[in-house]
Amino acid sequence: MAKLVRINMSTKKVTVEPLPEKYKGKGGRWLSSLIVSDEVPADCHPLGPNNKLVIAPGILSGTRAPNSGRVSVGGKSPLTGGIKEANAGSPFPQNLARMGYAALVIEGLVEDGSQWLLKVDVNGGELIPADDLAGKGAYETGHKIWEKYEDKPAFVVNGPAGEAKMTMAGMAFSDPEGRAARYAGRGGLGAVMGSKGLKAIVLDHKDAPGIKPADQELLKTGQKKLADAILSHDVTKKGGALNSYGTAVLINILNEAGGLPTNNFRSGVFEGAQKISGEAVAEAAQKRGGAGTMGHRCHPGCVINCSTVYANEDGSEHVSSVEYESLWSLGANCGIDNLDHVAELIWQCNDLGIDTIEAGCTIGVAMEAGLAEFGDGEAAIKMMEEIRNRTPLGHILGQGTQFTGEAYGVTRIPTVKRQGMPAYEPRAVKGIGVTYATSTMGADHTAGYTIAPEILSVGGTSEPLSKKDKIGLSKAFQDTTAFLDAAGYCIFIAFPILDIESGFEGVIETVNGMLGTSYKADDVTRIGDEILRLERNFNLKAGIGKEQDRMPEFMKYEKLPPHNHVWDIEDDELDSFWD
Amino acid sequence: MAKLVRINMSTKKVTVEPLPEKYKGKGGRWLSSLIVSDEVPADCHPLGPNNKLVIAPGILSGTRAPNSGRVSVGGKSPLTGGIKEANAGSPFPQNLARMGYAALVIEGLVEDGSQWLLKVDVNGGELIPADDLAGKGAYETGHKIWEKYEDKPAFVVNGPAGEAKMTMAGMAFSDPEGRAARYAGRGGLGAVMGSKGLKAIVLDHKDAPGIKPADQELLKTGQKKLADAILSHDVTKKGGALNSYGTAVLINILNEAGGLPTNNFRSGVFEGAQKISGEAVAEAAQKRGGAGTMGHRCHPGCVINCSTVYANEDGSEHVSSVEYESLWSLGANCGIDNLDHVAELIWQCNDLGIDTIEAGCTIGVAMEAGLAEFGDGEAAIKMMEEIRNRTPLGHILGQGTQFTGEAYGVTRIPTVKRQGMPAYEPRAVKGIGVTYATSTMGADHTAGYTIAPEILSVGGTSEPLSKKDKIGLSKAFQDTTAFLDAAGYCIFIAFPILDIESGFEGVIETVNGMLGTSYKADDVTRIGDEILRLERNFNLKAGIGKEQDRMPEFMKYEKLPPHNHVWDIEDDELDSFWD
Repeated sequence: MAKLVRINMSTKKVTVEPLPEKYKGKGGRWLSSLIVSDEVPADCHPLGPNNKLVIAPGILSGTRAPNSGRVSVGGKSPLTGGIKEANAGSPFPQNLARMGYAALVIEGLVEDGSQWLLKVDVNGGELIPADDLAGKGAYETGHKIWEKYEDKPAFVVNGPAGEAKMTMAGMAFSDPEGRAARYAGRGGLGAVMGSKGLKAIVLDHKDAPGIKPADQELLKTGQKKLADAILSHDVTKKGGALNSYGTAVLINILNEAGGLPTNNFRSGVFEGAQKISGEAVAEAAQKRGGAGTMGHRCHPGCVINCSTVYANEDGSEHVSSVEYESLWSLGANCGIDNLDHVAELIWQCNDLGIDTIEAGCTIGVAMEAGLAEFGDGEAAIKMMEEIRNRTPLGHILGQGTQFTGEAYGVTRIPTVKRQGMPAYEPRAVKGIGVTYATSTMGADHTAGYTIAPEILSVGGTSEPLSKKDKIGLSKAFQDTTAFLDAAGYCIFIAFPILDIESGFEGVIETVNGMLGTSYKADDVTRIGDEILRLERNFNLKAGIGKEQDRMPEFMKYEKLPPHNHVWDIEDDELDSFWD
Repeated sequence: MAKLVRINMSTKKVTVEPLPEKYKGKGGRWLSSLIVSDEVPADCHPLGPNNKLVIAPGILSGTRAPNSGRVSVGGKSPLTGGIKEANAGSPFPQNLARMGYAALVIEGLVEDGSQWLLKVDVNGGELIPADDLAGKGAYETGHKIWEKYEDKPAFVVNGPAGEAKMTMAGMAFSDPEGRAARYAGRGGLGAVMGSKGLKAIVLDHKDAPGIKPADQELLKTGQKKLADAILSHDVTKKGGALNSYGTAVLINILNEAGGLPTNNFRSGVFEGAQKISGEAVAEAAQKRGGAGTMGHRCHPGCVINCSTVYANEDGSEHVSSVEYESLWSLGANCGIDNLDHVAELIWQCNDLGIDTIEAGCTIGVAMEAGLAEFGDGEAAIKMMEEIRNRTPLGHILGQGTQFTGEAYGVTRIPTVKRQGMPAYEPRAVKGIGVTYATSTMGADHTAGYTIAPEILSVGGTSEPLSKKDKIGLSKAFQDTTAFLDAAGYCIFIAFPILDIESGFEGVIETVNGMLGTSYKADDVTRIGDEILRLERNFNLKAGIGKEQDRMPEFMKYEKLPPHNHVWDIEDDELDSFWD
């Protein structure tokens, strides 16, 4: 039976506990949000002794279900002040699940500033002094672990920003080649890891008992249905949009829709979009050769392969992966159209251990405040050095978009619940704005990706500039997403399962096959809704209610070119989200 | 009839309006909180175009009622995010009232960073370009105005911190000698003034029609009763505690009670207390001679005279006034026991235009973060230079206690609703802690000064370490205080009116004499409660509810020496405050 590992950083004790009955059949976001709700006082200081970090594989992680290698990390967010669930694709949750663990629960605090490495094995684990890793970049930390431990171990590390308790810090999970580059990025969970003095976790998966599904045949049937759907949908198939250009395929698409936030959300169109587009990334991969490749993957069992490796001019590896969100945030949003500068900014973020979305929003606001000119890539790279050197400016920037804006009295701050907005302009794509406003996570596109029907004509169509029916649209997406996050599925499977019914059946069958449950289609939204309300309830207790389900005021009175729309969904409409 | 002056910073228009019926008979905090509630959207950005600054004399300001020269400033606070009312003693409200104005309402924004001076006269007023004053210290700005305009004009100026939109900035009103040193200090209203491009307001009181009380005789009777009470009470009489030692008389008293927060609220006892006490200030005044004096006053008509002037060794003026809160915050709370260092820090705060309480709490947290050693006065003075030079560190410190703590991941941050705590340790004096937690203003001692019965045995006695009956005690004090803030009375009249019934009668008779009302004793708490609920309602709409009526978490688990008490009033007891 699945177990839970409890790690107390104050006492350095690691204990294995049977999984409580109420947590059985849960996983991923469902389980992490449940444990956080049960064990973390909503009003605690996020960096104090009473916050916890919960790491849970999805229900299907470790099985052969396609694209099910997502790991969920939960805790109280030092960025938003509310509950946080961030997830990443990595071999980590697959190995953790195969070792028989449903979750790691990290609690307490190290008081003396020392750094520790947690080694987890099938008998539990131990905390090992890791002061030699203190201050080291995420990449170097990951490399050292990859070399020191046997058998290509999966791991997660904290970068220098998290050590410094900066709230834009994420947690860097390993990819299949041992890069510390798959981020549970949002909401500052790296700062929580830092507050606990935990530099890294490495999984020694020797003697892992593996996964024992309740109904192997049903699981297999579902796997095949889902894989077939993924491999036949234009967005996700081999040679399809994501596989050919990576997620960065969206740069040109959003730019054409007038929804690519540019220069700190001053416009929906970026003149230099083409230069930082997925097409440009693919062209560079072809031209420079060497390490540069498209169609990379973040975890074994992924059949989409949308990740990328970007090469230097000489063909040596520069950084993996260059994603749409990062290219947008550190590119268009800062007016930077030099792809090498943007790639370097992504590398810096990865090595510092910070969320690229939050970093790009922060630099955009810093530029708005006059700290640098929009478009100045070198100035942006220097800001990364400030964070690394922990200068006062680094301590401002490291705390994110809202904080940086407040430091300089900026009124145009693109955040919800203090979290920087992702790569879709809500004034130009209203449904995603509803997701930003209402998500329990703060501004977050993955929480309810209405871009599918609004921009990509997947799962039907919905006019992006219209406010009609956007509350219900976002709610439906958020419910389903919460379920997928529980299952451990990558949200990109949403594209095929929205359009291909057998793919959706495959999702339900894989879960039922794994758990022995008999969930039906309705249960997907029911369970998703249950997860959202659990999180919402935590937020209410933390003092984050409907008054925080709000878009930044400037978007209500400032028209966005080229469509010249303001944010026009009324607050009471937003409030109906929870009715 | 009283009028209202509306100043639009966007259009530069100044208009005089008749006072709306609903505002008649209101004044001070009552009126400023009403106008803010009516005109400012609770969810607006405090530094954006939709916030307003309301400046209102008290109901009695301008009359001969003793100690009635308080001016109320209201707006949405950029520090707390809620409603803010800060008041100061100054000739300003006296002259404003005599000119026939019930309030100034400043709205809109200057977009180009230019600075303006508002000259108000009996016909309205005008905005005058004041770029020559940009960046100038509050003192220099005040001096220039005092010299340039005739007839010893009352004024209010904004310092460099407010210009830079730093949220610890207050507004510096003139004292009777033209010093820009009487602060509506708390909650960052100087930053609001700065966001509006308003450097100063000067009153040209020529041809002021004066005050026309409804019942001159009743007003006179009340005045005499109140003056007699003030002048016969030990705390407020000539040669009494406040007159002899200033407010700083409290340093030794609180230290002996174990309630003087020391080294960022790590202890309730400060070894160096004696050196920064009121006794030490009085001794310096006597020894150094020259400008150094006790028994100074902040506005004509004050019969307590608790203000002080501190001199340099050579007898030249160093700074006025050295108050208890400032000596504590910049002294004990930072472990600094050098009175000249503390006086210099106060001068710097005054010249920068920042709140001394917020500044001292901020430096305390910065020391906690390791930016300087506790006790290092010179390092603290250097921090003031960072603010003046608008360095990145200055931009951190300038945003206050909570912000500075967050920048460095500090968990021991002594704030409520993001506002730094005043000079009374809530773990050692529980009633004042209830006031900190529940006040609509954030941590604020003046909102409900339960120190009177808890420490000074004024208005009865209440055991400071006991949590018994503290909710009701704080509520009664907060109600009464809100009424006094409406009347324009200094809160120090609370001492005599708590102990001497005729003094309390005098308060009611002066208000009735002025307005022609027939308020009774019960109306004082009724009106006070009405004001509080008005403010609370604004806060609720701004997303600040009971979850923000909370003490910092560390005070719940960290015992405070010497009494080793934690904060033990439960959250649901705090919630009963509003029942």
